[in-house]
Amino acid sequence: MVKLNANLKNLKKNYLFVDIQNKAKDYISKNPAAQLISMGIGDVTLPLSPVITKAMQDASREMNDAKNFRGYGPYEGYNFLREAISKKYLDYGVEVKAEEIYVSDGAKSDAANILDVLSSESTVLITDPVYPVYLDASVMSGHKIHYVSATEDNEFLPLPEENLKADIIYICSPNNPTGAVYNRAQLKRWVDFANINESLIIFDAAYEAFIESSDLPHSIFEIEGSRKCAIELCSFSKSAGFTGIRCAYMVIPKELKVGSENLGEVWLRRQSIKFNGVSYITQKAALAALSPEGKEETLKCVRYYKRNARILSEAIKELGFWYTGGENSPYIWFKGPQGMKSWELFDYLLEKANIVSTPGSGFGSNGEGFIRLSSFGSYENTLCAAQRLKSIKF
Amino acid sequence: MVKLNANLKNLKKNYLFVDIQNKAKDYISKNPAAQLISMGIGDVTLPLSPVITKAMQDASREMNDAKNFRGYGPYEGYNFLREAISKKYLDYGVEVKAEEIYVSDGAKSDAANILDVLSSESTVLITDPVYPVYLDASVMSGHKIHYVSATEDNEFLPLPEENLKADIIYICSPNNPTGAVYNRAQLKRWVDFANINESLIIFDAAYEAFIESSDLPHSIFEIEGSRKCAIELCSFSKSAGFTGIRCAYMVIPKELKVGSENLGEVWLRRQSIKFNGVSYITQKAALAALSPEGKEETLKCVRYYKRNARILSEAIKELGFWYTGGENSPYIWFKGPQGMKSWELFDYLLEKANIVSTPGSGFGSNGEGFIRLSSFGSYENTLCAAQRLKSIKF
Repeated sequence: MVKLNANLKNLKKNYLFVDIQNKAKDYISKNPAAQLISMGIGDVTLPLSPVITKAMQDASREMNDAKNFRGYGPYEGYNFLREAISKKYLDYGVEVKAEEIYVSDGAKSDAANILDVLSSESTVLITDPVYPVYLDASVMSGHKIHYVSATEDNEFLPLPEENLKADIIYICSPNNPTGAVYNRAQLKRWVDFANINESLIIFDAAYEAFIESSDLPHSIFEIEGSRKCAIELCSFSKSAGFTGIRCAYMVIPKELKVGSENLGEVWLRRQSIKFNGVSYITQKAALAALSPEGKEETLKCVRYYKRNARILSEAIKELGFWYTGGENSPYIWFKGPQGMKSWELFDYLLEKANIVSTPGSGFGSNGEGFIRLSSFGSYENTLCAAQRLKSIKF
Repeated sequence: MVKLNANLKNLKKNYLFVDIQNKAKDYISKNPAAQLISMGIGDVTLPLSPVITKAMQDASREMNDAKNFRGYGPYEGYNFLREAISKKYLDYGVEVKAEEIYVSDGAKSDAANILDVLSSESTVLITDPVYPVYLDASVMSGHKIHYVSATEDNEFLPLPEENLKADIIYICSPNNPTGAVYNRAQLKRWVDFANINESLIIFDAAYEAFIESSDLPHSIFEIEGSRKCAIELCSFSKSAGFTGIRCAYMVIPKELKVGSENLGEVWLRRQSIKFNGVSYITQKAALAALSPEGKEETLKCVRYYKRNARILSEAIKELGFWYTGGENSPYIWFKGPQGMKSWELFDYLLEKANIVSTPGSGFGSNGEGFIRLSSFGSYENTLCAAQRLKSIKF
């Protein structure tokens, strides 16, 4: 008799975004004239840059031509893209070789799939609050989970505590949901911890394009010692608007071993069994995003979202609420009036300002009392939302 | 200390295609004038149809337009594609609802990933010889494996034997590597077995487009009772030339339960954690492949390969070798002269006919003595290869 993976029953049903959607629908049915502004989603809204569109059209044409047609691509991605990603790292003064880069269909997939090759006896460290995928993937594969608290006290940037034990450490910086960003000294403490304890850091840099302060690292590989203990996930989703196109990559340094095995080789074996490479069209689109013209065009989009983030964080500052994010991050994470729960605050914002937000409690118990706002909407809506925020009484 | 998944050490290094490539390279370096013909690969070679290319170009343009831009898509695929796939099933007289269809980036990925949600205490049944992914994925996830022998005696179409125990059953028909295809009565025996034993059949129909005999089923859902015990994988790779584009789907009937859970819901939860949907551009390409014009154009490609398969199988027949496949399948699986091992035969074909083939022993011990030929090359090369085959002495 076939049975389900028993770990699945330990997954919590995550209805966060369904609940949000239902509340918004319910409100609009009772108040049909209301102009709701969604500040809840983490999805981009600006269209793809022309240079990327053109690259996809050209690649589509190539595939219609017998001489240029390409079938199965390499599991690890085409070299043209790996070389371009390698070059991009030089912008941050980081040397990552093309052969250390593994192209995939999403940083989220990679964050979850890497557990396939790691022993379920290895404990996983995640923060509370956390991007739910790290938690759910760990539960599904039967890993034991340790939490480290991210709170107002540590500005949502927890550091290794004494007696901490963790074999696998998920770090997301700039953080989703809190928008907090580790500086180099803080990341160094995690890298040192990992090297001493022979832990593996899974560094999720999906939002690195939003960093502008020069004291904040874009990559874990800016930190000394990281090549022996860390892998990095990054994506074209938020930098180039690829949430609907699907292209990301994992960096596994050549010297990174788990036990006696080279992790990059192990990962490639996994990919050869459970994956079949990323569409040629998509990889050409990603290549275009990394061209000089593509970088300029996509930077414009990032700047557009960052202006939104600034507008929102200034509104929150004016209201006098404690917050993180808003700069170097597309998210603003703020704490409402004392004693107000996340969902109460959500309802209040919905009713008084017609703003749809994300309750922080949906990301973990330490998120209680907090709200996440996203800057991925339009400039006009963001301005309007900021005005509405500032005009309501708390 | 972080550790690797201990099951990984049970994976056999699979160097089959690397070994083949090295032998071919070695031969060409010693015989630079030789005109090698590759009959080894399972990758398509004809370019994409114009209607598909156009769909990708149009979809790329849409993504460059603020009004039509699409970010994250549904994990299970866009409804426009699920509806079109549902309609396609009607061509075979099979009713599959759009909401029973889960779009993905590959039938191979699905074949391996489905094990994520199944208990590793459930035993997996695979044939020997077998498409290596079923084996490797089962080993990696720690499932116990039972083999059932596919041999000349059962025409490489094994049926449930007495006392057979199996919780999860992989069936690939038309088969890779053997080209053998189950008829309805044979599949009914597997379905009955699965229903009696509460097993799950994972039916891989990736090559169904090659079936033309009306007594052979394209889908497991042509078989009575299958909706309670089977899921089906299918792909645009071989039907529409999508090996480099990546689009496939899994069908999970609404009434299919594992324990008390609806498998479709469980799978969607898995996808929401470890997957992020298929590119919008790709899904529009798949939709175009299912349009009347797309069906006509892609059918032309399938017919082209099928003509190759016929040419090859006729040559093998003339040589008097026992074989399966060649019709209703892009593969020809033949047995060389008595006592000749697969790799000997490979070397012989390479030297005497300058043909690169695939040794059957690479797919399992019962493949020893056999060779797989693929019909995915060009017509001209296939004609030439057939001539060469017929002219050498065995």
